[in-house]
Amino acid sequence: MADDKGLTPRAEDFSTWYTDVIARAELADYSPVRGCMVIRPGGYAIWEHMQAALDRMFKESGHQNAYFPLFIPQSFLAREAEHVEGFAPETAVVTQGGGKELEEPLVVRPTSETIIYASFAKWIQSWRDLPMLINQWCNVVRWEMRTRLFLRTTEFLWQEGHTAHATADEAEAEALQMLKIYRVFMEDHMAMPVVTGLKTDSERFAGAVRTYACEGLMQDNKALQAATSHNLGQNFARAFDVQFQTAEGGLDYVWSTSWGASTRLIGGLIMTHGDDAGLVAPPQLAQYQVVIVPIYRKDEERSVVLEVAHDLREELAANGFRVHLDARDGLKPGAKYYEWEGKGVPLRIEIGPRDIAAGTLMLARRIGGKESIPRDAAADRVGVELEAIQRSLLETARERREANSLRGATKDEFIGYLEGGGGFVYAGWCGSAECEQTIKDQTKATIRVLPDDEFRSDTPPSTCVWCGSPSTAEAIWARAY
Amino acid sequence: MADDKGLTPRAEDFSTWYTDVIARAELADYSPVRGCMVIRPGGYAIWEHMQAALDRMFKESGHQNAYFPLFIPQSFLAREAEHVEGFAPETAVVTQGGGKELEEPLVVRPTSETIIYASFAKWIQSWRDLPMLINQWCNVVRWEMRTRLFLRTTEFLWQEGHTAHATADEAEAEALQMLKIYRVFMEDHMAMPVVTGLKTDSERFAGAVRTYACEGLMQDNKALQAATSHNLGQNFARAFDVQFQTAEGGLDYVWSTSWGASTRLIGGLIMTHGDDAGLVAPPQLAQYQVVIVPIYRKDEERSVVLEVAHDLREELAANGFRVHLDARDGLKPGAKYYEWEGKGVPLRIEIGPRDIAAGTLMLARRIGGKESIPRDAAADRVGVELEAIQRSLLETARERREANSLRGATKDEFIGYLEGGGGFVYAGWCGSAECEQTIKDQTKATIRVLPDDEFRSDTPPSTCVWCGSPSTAEAIWARAY
Repeated sequence: MADDKGLTPRAEDFSTWYTDVIARAELADYSPVRGCMVIRPGGYAIWEHMQAALDRMFKESGHQNAYFPLFIPQSFLAREAEHVEGFAPETAVVTQGGGKELEEPLVVRPTSETIIYASFAKWIQSWRDLPMLINQWCNVVRWEMRTRLFLRTTEFLWQEGHTAHATADEAEAEALQMLKIYRVFMEDHMAMPVVTGLKTDSERFAGAVRTYACEGLMQDNKALQAATSHNLGQNFARAFDVQFQTAEGGLDYVWSTSWGASTRLIGGLIMTHGDDAGLVAPPQLAQYQVVIVPIYRKDEERSVVLEVAHDLREELAANGFRVHLDARDGLKPGAKYYEWEGKGVPLRIEIGPRDIAAGTLMLARRIGGKESIPRDAAADRVGVELEAIQRSLLETARERREANSLRGATKDEFIGYLEGGGGFVYAGWCGSAECEQTIKDQTKATIRVLPDDEFRSDTPPSTCVWCGSPSTAEAIWARAY
Repeated sequence: MADDKGLTPRAEDFSTWYTDVIARAELADYSPVRGCMVIRPGGYAIWEHMQAALDRMFKESGHQNAYFPLFIPQSFLAREAEHVEGFAPETAVVTQGGGKELEEPLVVRPTSETIIYASFAKWIQSWRDLPMLINQWCNVVRWEMRTRLFLRTTEFLWQEGHTAHATADEAEAEALQMLKIYRVFMEDHMAMPVVTGLKTDSERFAGAVRTYACEGLMQDNKALQAATSHNLGQNFARAFDVQFQTAEGGLDYVWSTSWGASTRLIGGLIMTHGDDAGLVAPPQLAQYQVVIVPIYRKDEERSVVLEVAHDLREELAANGFRVHLDARDGLKPGAKYYEWEGKGVPLRIEIGPRDIAAGTLMLARRIGGKESIPRDAAADRVGVELEAIQRSLLETARERREANSLRGATKDEFIGYLEGGGGFVYAGWCGSAECEQTIKDQTKATIRVLPDDEFRSDTPPSTCVWCGSPSTAEAIWARAY
C-alpha cells in the first residue's frame, strides 16, 4: 500500500491495487487453507444481491432450484471422456471417511454434470418430463496452482444451471437464452458491459458441443470471462444413459445445457468500477446504497443531530433504500468518509447542526459531486441519484471499453496493440487452431469469443489477421484473466 | 407403499410412511453417494422459504452473512480438545489435491468454529470490534453410519452463526436470544411447537460450556432436536488465541457463541404435519400456497376456463400469494388433485364452466373442508384461509404434543409411558450422569432438555424420578431421532 490513502494507484501496479481495494473494502481475506478465501460480510453482501437478481431471472424463465451432493464418485467423472480429461487434474479427492479408507475415492465437485445426470436418468422417462430446468447454488473446488481473491480460488461459490430438452433446437435456444440473461444481469445490475459470443474449440468446456461466454474488459485492458453457457448436445445424456420416450413413441437421448456464474463476478465488479480511492459499488448491488454521517461537536448537538439522522434513516429505509447510519462515537466524520469511500458506498449524506437549522443536508456521490439539498427532497433525490449513478457507471465502462477496442488492424498493428497492453482486438480468423496458438504464444492473447451478431464489426474482416487466408469468422482477441 | 393411495399409513409403519411422503411429494432422493441426498425442487423450495425467514430474523438482530472455507486443516480441529474428540471420528478427509498427496490432510467441515476463529483472531483487536456477529449458510459433512433423508445425512445444508463478545453475560444473552429466534421461527413459520431448554453435559456440543436446544415432538412420539445454540465461553478463544483490548485497557479472550439449524427442519415439518395422504405444508413455507386446477371436457370449454384460470392466477400472484396454475393437458382433474394433495399444497381452487357461469369457484383445504365461494372474493378468502390453516396447524400440533406429555409420574409410570411409546415425560432429576445413563439404557429415552422457565411444570418435582434423591432440575425425557 503506497500513497497516503493506503492504496497503490492503478497506474502503478494494477494487481496490487486490486488486492489493496479488497483489503480496504473488507471484501475478502486469504484463509489458512491454500487457495481458499474467506468472503467477508462486505463482499458477501454484494454476492447476496447478485444471487437475488440472478435467481429472480432464473425463476422467471422457468427454472427451479435443487441441491445435489458435494461428492462425486471418481468413476462418474470418468464416464464422459473429454470431461474427465479436463477436470481430473484439478480435483480434490476424499479418500477417508469416518476414520476408514474409502473403497472408491470421492471427488469434491469441480462442477456437477456427472452427479446431476445420475438423477436426470431417474427423473426423466418421457417427453412429458421435459424440459427439465434445474439450477443449483453451491460451492465447487478446483485445485488451482495460482490463485487470486475472487478471480481464481480453489473453492468458489457459484450457480450451475442444468437443463434437459427433447430437441437439439430447444437446447441451443436455452443456452442462448441463459447467455442473454447473464448479459442483461451484468449490464443492468453490475453496470459491466460485456460482449457475448462463441468460444473456439480450445476454450470450450470439457464435454460441451458449444460454449458461449460473456467477456468484460477490465481497467487494465485484460478480458474477464464473466459467465459461460454450454450446449452439451447429447454427450452427457449418452454417458449417463438419460433417455426419454418421445411424443412419437420412439426413444432418444435428451439434449442438454449447463451454465454458470461465480463469485468471480465480484472481481469483475471491482476491476470495472474501482478507482484509486477504493471500491465503487453499483447501486443495484451495493451493501449500503446510502450512508448517513452525523456531524456534531458538542454533546447538546449530538442528540439533536442523531435524532434527525435516525428519522432520515427510517424514511429512506421505508422508501426501499439500503441505508446505514454511522453513529459510531469516537470517530471523526472525516475518518468515516474515508472508510465509506473505500467501501464504495454510492451516496453519502452528511448532516450537522447548520444543515438542520437550514432544513438541508449535504449529498455526496462516490463518483464525484457534492451538493446541499432540501431535507424534504431527500428520498426523491436519493432515488434519482442512485439511478443516475447506475447509468453513469455503465456508460463510463462502455466508453472505456470502446476506447480500448481496435478494429480493422493490420497484422503489425494487431501485434503492437496487444503487446502494448491494448484491450479488445477485433480481427478476421481463418478458423485454424494453429493460427490461434501461434498468436497466443507470441502475444499472450487468446480469442475471447467469436462475437454474436450485434457485437460484430459493421464491415466484417475478409481475411485472417495472421495467415491472410479467408476469414471464417470475426474474432475478439485479448489477454485475459 | 401399501394402500390405494400408495402411502403406508402412519399407524402401520411410521418410518416407511416418512419415506413414502418424501417420494410422493418429490422432496428428496438418495444419491449414488453413500448417505448423501439430492434435495429435489419441491424440498428445496421449502428450504428457500426457511432460509428467507431465518435470514431476515438474523439480520434484524444485527448479524451479517459471510463465507468461510469448506476445508479445515486437520491440525486446526485438534486445537480444542473436546471438539476434536467429538468430531474427528465422523469426518471426511481430503488427502489428494491437484493430483498430488497433500502435506497436511484437509477435513471437510463438520462445523466451522475452528476455521472461523482463525479469522476472528485477525479481525478482532479491540472492544470496538465487538460484538462480532457472523452467520454462514453452507454445506457440512459428518460421516454418519445410518442415514435418513433430511434427518441424518452425511452432507447437509445449514446455517451456523458465530459470534464473539466482550463479556460472558453478552455471550449468554446472545445464545439465549438465538434460541428464542429459532423457537419463534418454528412456531410462526413451521407451525411446529417446541420446548426450549438446556442440554445436559452428555448431550452438550463438543467444546461448549452450555448448549440450549429446541425440541419438537413428532407424530410417532419421538423427539426431534430442531436447532441448538451454544455458549462457548472462552474455550475456542483460548484455543485460537482470540484476544482483544478491553475498554479499560486490559487484554482478554473473547466470549463466544455458535448456533445452527439445518435441512433436518424439513424432516421435522414432514413428521409434524404430514398425514396418510402425504405432505401437509404450512402456508408460510409451502412452495405453492394455492394450486388452480381448471376443469373442462370439450375444446370450447377449455379456452374459456383457462382464460379465467389465468386471470385468477394473475390476481392471486399480484396479491402476493404463491400460486400455480396446473394447466397440463392429458391429465384428469382427479389425478391433479391427487398429486397436489401428496405435495401438501394448502389450498386448491377448482374452476369449471359451471363455476364460471355462476361467478364462483370451489375452494378446497388440504387439511379438510371444501366450499364454493364467489369468484370476486377469491383473493380475500385465500388470505384468510391461509392464515387460518397456519394457525390451525400449530394448534393441532400443540394439542397433540400436550396429549402426549406426562407430568407427575411415578417411576413405574415413567418407565411404562416411555416403553409404551409415549411422548415427553416431565420429571425430577438428581443431576447425576448415572441416573441419566441408566434410564437411557433401560428405556432408550434421553433427557431432551432441562426446560426453560415457561415450559416447567406448575409444581416442580422435588425428587429424582429414578433414585429418589432431591431433584436439582426438572427434565424432559423422550426417545429421540
